[in-house]
Amino acid sequence: MTDITMIEAARKRIGTEAIRTPLLSSPFLDEIAGRRIFVKAECLQRTGSFKFRGGWSAVSALEPDVRKRGVIAFSSGNHAQGVALAAALHGVPSVIIMPQDAPAIKIENTKAYGAEVVLFDRANDDRDAIGAMLSQERGLTLIRPFDEPLVIAGQGTVGLEIAEQGLELGITTADVLVPCGGGGLTSGVALALQANAPGYTVRTCEPEKFDDVARSLASGKIERNEALAGSICDAIITPQPGNITFPIMMNRCGKGIVVSEDEALRAMVLAFLRLKVVVEPGGAVALAAALFHGEEFETDTIIAIASGGNVDPGVMASALSRF
Amino acid sequence: MTDITMIEAARKRIGTEAIRTPLLSSPFLDEIAGRRIFVKAECLQRTGSFKFRGGWSAVSALEPDVRKRGVIAFSSGNHAQGVALAAALHGVPSVIIMPQDAPAIKIENTKAYGAEVVLFDRANDDRDAIGAMLSQERGLTLIRPFDEPLVIAGQGTVGLEIAEQGLELGITTADVLVPCGGGGLTSGVALALQANAPGYTVRTCEPEKFDDVARSLASGKIERNEALAGSICDAIITPQPGNITFPIMMNRCGKGIVVSEDEALRAMVLAFLRLKVVVEPGGAVALAAALFHGEEFETDTIIAIASGGNVDPGVMASALSRF
Repeated sequence: MTDITMIEAARKRIGTEAIRTPLLSSPFLDEIAGRRIFVKAECLQRTGSFKFRGGWSAVSALEPDVRKRGVIAFSSGNHAQGVALAAALHGVPSVIIMPQDAPAIKIENTKAYGAEVVLFDRANDDRDAIGAMLSQERGLTLIRPFDEPLVIAGQGTVGLEIAEQGLELGITTADVLVPCGGGGLTSGVALALQANAPGYTVRTCEPEKFDDVARSLASGKIERNEALAGSICDAIITPQPGNITFPIMMNRCGKGIVVSEDEALRAMVLAFLRLKVVVEPGGAVALAAALFHGEEFETDTIIAIASGGNVDPGVMASALSRF
Repeated sequence: MTDITMIEAARKRIGTEAIRTPLLSSPFLDEIAGRRIFVKAECLQRTGSFKFRGGWSAVSALEPDVRKRGVIAFSSGNHAQGVALAAALHGVPSVIIMPQDAPAIKIENTKAYGAEVVLFDRANDDRDAIGAMLSQERGLTLIRPFDEPLVIAGQGTVGLEIAEQGLELGITTADVLVPCGGGGLTSGVALALQANAPGYTVRTCEPEKFDDVARSLASGKIERNEALAGSICDAIITPQPGNITFPIMMNRCGKGIVVSEDEALRAMVLAFLRLKVVVEPGGAVALAAALFHGEEFETDTIIAIASGGNVDPGVMASALSRF
């Protein structure tokens, strides 16, 4: 079970391998929100999202003779790239299982970070069976995207940095807004802040129609989304919170916040214009909540995590002209 | 005369007011360049460029009773915003003198950072006379954009950070590439690195047709540009290097590098795609040199400063579709 000791240990293993991403701010954003907003720009992390931290944490914790056989992950997104680069930097192989119809650019990027990509046909293949066969044949270790204590510990290092950077600025009370998919980042950050910045409250942020975490936090039990796809916030679309992450979130997080797709896109454009960072729509939901859902907060200071920046340039160009 | 003691003092005055911007990297960029590239993402600085550092350094060094009367600057660009915000955060007035035909967005932004903007007509008004009159009437202190020791000291704090961050990564020898206009950033960084990372060599980077610094470094005396405007790299177009900055650069910098406008735009797109930062064309010339002028370097490691991010969104959207 992940705790602050595991998160501190993950940070030691990570060392200078991950970027200590800055806390950014702009008077223009404060003006819109009517309060102080800081953005933890985790989109600047290696591979373009916080997932590199969890990947590094998990790969680096393996026993050397286990690690050298390699790792495997199921992902077509940010987790794939984070695990691939973490493995490559350790000099060990990685296999990433992706659907055949994943965007070509994602497949290319994952390969470029050093992974062997194995494609499966969603209609006819059993993804898990392919993974199990490969793992057994080659002795690969599976790295789950969020329901894995070492991955949660790695994501929790974002929380250690937020506590340090926030306290350095004299911020003792704040809402910390986290884009939430399966809950790996949220639960890691919540554990770190509980230990190191107890005046900070973690709030989950999700796009409309994919608000499984907000509903689960409200009902006290794991709730599922009806749809499994179809949001522009693709990076944070998961069917339901994790079995490990949900109890951590249930004990430590405030009420979940749900934003519209247009709010996420407007936040993405404002991050471009005012903070000079590239954020993907799913990574912008926390900033969107900070900017456009002021009535849901009581503190005068918000720290919003921008969790990833792997946006299609066409999506950005279109949003820049629309908003 | 600026020296390392003045730069260290500027850093003390700046404290946590400026962002300690990260050093970013991507295997995709290393692959293009055939060597390691790190980008000092100063586009993430408050107001979107390193100019905030120089502005803060100069405003914070004034005697309190002088400072409270306010400051004045001539600029339609990044220096205007840097000085305006530095003054506002000190609670003192700022007057920025801008041409009537400056883009509306730049005038708006400068006002939003707290400045009083005074417009002049390029054809009929004497800009310096307006400034002199206002300064005298109100007791304002002029803050020059680069030929001013306190401003150079503030920009030099970028160099202090590069030395720390580079040495932390084990980099003992590197070319440090700096987008160069009047030379305030270049000379400040050169002084800081000479003291704290003597294995690093500073190289100036400029756009074609505005290569006054490269030519001045080659001839050993101050050379002027023929044109005074007409580059997409508007942030770093100055007629000639400064009288204070040039001797510093002449003593400490390697050969100047000149890139094409298309190279600057391609570097801007690659920074967007691979580093998730928004860089303006003038701010991207150092990364362009790193990526596309490999034959001009002998070291295996380059640290390129991305000096600013205040790009028109239409320019970015068009470049994203073109490259």
